[in-house]
Amino acid sequence: MAHETSTVMEPARRLVVIGGAEDRSGECVILRAFLRRATPVGGDAHIVVIPIASDSPKRTGGDYVETFRRLGAGASEVLHLQSREEARAPRSIEMLERATGVFLTGGDQQRIMSMLGGTKLDTLLHHRWEQGMVLAGTSAGATAMSSTMLMEHSPEADPLEGPVWTGPGMEFLQGAVIDQHFGERKRLGRLLSVVARFPHELGIGIDEDTGLLVDDHTFEVIGHGTVTVIDGGSAAFYDRPGRGTAHVRPAFCDIRLHVLPAGHRFDLVERRPIVEAVRIQVED
Amino acid sequence: MAHETSTVMEPARRLVVIGGAEDRSGECVILRAFLRRATPVGGDAHIVVIPIASDSPKRTGGDYVETFRRLGAGASEVLHLQSREEARAPRSIEMLERATGVFLTGGDQQRIMSMLGGTKLDTLLHHRWEQGMVLAGTSAGATAMSSTMLMEHSPEADPLEGPVWTGPGMEFLQGAVIDQHFGERKRLGRLLSVVARFPHELGIGIDEDTGLLVDDHTFEVIGHGTVTVIDGGSAAFYDRPGRGTAHVRPAFCDIRLHVLPAGHRFDLVERRPIVEAVRIQVED
Repeated sequence: MAHETSTVMEPARRLVVIGGAEDRSGECVILRAFLRRATPVGGDAHIVVIPIASDSPKRTGGDYVETFRRLGAGASEVLHLQSREEARAPRSIEMLERATGVFLTGGDQQRIMSMLGGTKLDTLLHHRWEQGMVLAGTSAGATAMSSTMLMEHSPEADPLEGPVWTGPGMEFLQGAVIDQHFGERKRLGRLLSVVARFPHELGIGIDEDTGLLVDDHTFEVIGHGTVTVIDGGSAAFYDRPGRGTAHVRPAFCDIRLHVLPAGHRFDLVERRPIVEAVRIQVED
Repeated sequence: MAHETSTVMEPARRLVVIGGAEDRSGECVILRAFLRRATPVGGDAHIVVIPIASDSPKRTGGDYVETFRRLGAGASEVLHLQSREEARAPRSIEMLERATGVFLTGGDQQRIMSMLGGTKLDTLLHHRWEQGMVLAGTSAGATAMSSTMLMEHSPEADPLEGPVWTGPGMEFLQGAVIDQHFGERKRLGRLLSVVARFPHELGIGIDEDTGLLVDDHTFEVIGHGTVTVIDGGSAAFYDRPGRGTAHVRPAFCDIRLHVLPAGHRFDLVERRPIVEAVRIQVED
């Protein structure tokens, strides 16, 4: 695969992870932040919109292309995929080679995985991203970015017993499960269920019109709402010694929760908010 | 006020706090636990049902009276209140004097407060409870038991900004805010909002057909679902030094969460689950 035509950008491994329903008519804080990140020094942003999650991809793709043009993208085009075969078509490959930013729309995250997963386009997407191309996704497009992906229509479950449906995602963001439309659809219980089952994963719940600017293993919150991080890392399951019957269930205790509005940062590896040191002024 | 006719029971300060929709036709685990607690040694349980929260108090009250009789209560009767005046009527007072257990039904917790709050019956209820009478409440009747009471129809809000409506409750349970139908109505976000505003209070979310057996400052979970405790005690609000603009909002971090199914216990003063020490066997 030849990448000599690609614009190499720094720093690499950057994501814009959006909780859905981001502003597209007003200030467009989140989409503008994506465009800024996708603009190479001394060059223009070249945005490719991939609307495969959507059940009306023509309209969804067209709307976003129009929005990015209006916001000042140098180029903005749609990559339509009707089949897995198209994901290895030269036209698709060439389009992605030119992109400085790729945007995954909302819809059903499983459609993203079944249409794109394992294709040449999937491989190239990762390669270009490692080189500096910025990947953004909203709603289903956000959920699909993590290694472990919440399935669409996962039920709100009993945190300790109910079924939680996860599957492998696109693996751009490791060690985290992303949920979106978070406050609006009251999904804290659902995400807590995932973390109780898989405490290795940080649960990241993103409100509508809210996003994460991810740089490697840290992120900063932008937009209107809040991001909720659920950390089961230092949590413990307690059995009750001495009362063991078949019906005794363990308690899941000391889960940590962080609620972060715009401007706040989080370290996904250290699993903690990044609190800037307060500079102590010494008079002399 | 003469209490010479009261049955003095030990231990005092016992509550049964139920998340609503408790089983009334099957095993009736929770209602039976209430009855057992309300049965004095060598005597019979005398249950008084107070359905003032309900908008159909006759039917609600009658149903519970019938259920408690079926489950073996020595006596079971309804205390109907149509007005605050009735809350000081001799008939009401005498009924409460005889009670070994009082049951507050569901409905609207504000009706409990406006009909009962500050009346002679309110005072007597506290007095009898201090003497050993057991107080149970389900749904609205549960929410009304705490010092700070979530109002009915409080909206699901942005954890850091949205309106949360609280008012003074009956003050049987201090330092906690109770929410009910918790998992079923996806109220984790709403309760988190309360704790973010008032971190002195533990947020206690009780699922349907689930209850707390409270003894003074500890409780044990019974029933089908789980109890979620939200602790903002050791949490911190982080501002971001160096970026202060009018729109910067603090993050609320390191909130602790515990998910407790039946059998597990919690200490409301120490703010932690009670984990029994594992006995180490020494061979000799």
